[in-house]
Amino acid sequence: MKKSLGPSLYPLPAPAWVIGTYDSAGKPNMMTAAWTGIVCSRPPSIGVSLQKIRYSYDNIVQRRAFTVNIPSAHYVQATDYFGIASGRDEDKLAASGLTAVCGDFVDAPYLKEFPAVFECQLLQTVEIGLHTQFIGEIKDFKVEAEFIGPNGKPMVDALDLFIWSDTYRRVGEPLAPAFSIGKRR
Amino acid sequence: MKKSLGPSLYPLPAPAWVIGTYDSAGKPNMMTAAWTGIVCSRPPSIGVSLQKIRYSYDNIVQRRAFTVNIPSAHYVQATDYFGIASGRDEDKLAASGLTAVCGDFVDAPYLKEFPAVFECQLLQTVEIGLHTQFIGEIKDFKVEAEFIGPNGKPMVDALDLFIWSDTYRRVGEPLAPAFSIGKRR
Repeated sequence: MKKSLGPSLYPLPAPAWVIGTYDSAGKPNMMTAAWTGIVCSRPPSIGVSLQKIRYSYDNIVQRRAFTVNIPSAHYVQATDYFGIASGRDEDKLAASGLTAVCGDFVDAPYLKEFPAVFECQLLQTVEIGLHTQFIGEIKDFKVEAEFIGPNGKPMVDALDLFIWSDTYRRVGEPLAPAFSIGKRR
Repeated sequence: MKKSLGPSLYPLPAPAWVIGTYDSAGKPNMMTAAWTGIVCSRPPSIGVSLQKIRYSYDNIVQRRAFTVNIPSAHYVQATDYFGIASGRDEDKLAASGLTAVCGDFVDAPYLKEFPAVFECQLLQTVEIGLHTQFIGEIKDFKVEAEFIGPNGKPMVDALDLFIWSDTYRRVGEPLAPAFSIGKRR
């Protein structure tokens, strides 16, 4: 029996991805976002929803670019920190001890230490309500060479991903093959 | 050292959520979508990106409503099936053996057997490219009573969630507390 919890939301689950931007002075900033995900295959695009009060909001409006940095479990503390502190008050890169590298394709910085990153060029801005969704076209996808498999794709087990659903939780071992198990009936 | 994989995308990870709609004849349909996620907190909203060729596309345009059904690991095979087959060719509900229940708040069906569901009213339609993003305002969030904790929120461990990242993978045990571990520096 289902119980109604009203017009509310809950991450079941949501990503914990780190959005990289430059501010007007050229200072790199990183902010963790959960209301984010892939939104289109062609052009390959990621949507990132931010509140207007976020420091990263103006950065994206001004530079029309952002990166989406994918953390491994090793960086869970830094990821949480990037979601708690504001670039308006502190230099989050300096505090984290992590390294910002200038994007190769867009005017935004990415994290050298994280295992994977998407470089995105702003494509559309969608006003929804408290959050504004920035849709960015993926101009490049970079992965640490050691995590790329023989098929040229990321080795997900090696990446040691995590998600957010009440707490941060590790992405586990394979459960079943996609586009396959559903054919067996 | 990062290696560039070009302007491509990869789910690191993505949801595997099942979108419920009625077609013009009132037949319920379920389709699995990975390019989906929460996009706004107020109004609480979910974005679902679909290609125009999907049977569910016209259903959402016509009924201006959809549900987002959250599967547990027990339903991984049905979830994969809903992503492979088309409602244009077969009655996926009948084939799956699962039960469609009419939404309480919107003109769309939800799965009785899945542990959680969001009922969404179409709020905005965003043309991106190959995919169109439907943004739906959450009118109700329902969870099986046995999975609601004493704090009135879903018990994520009990829900036994999974995600898609090359294969379906179980969401694992807590790794670290959110909005907390980042304060320890």
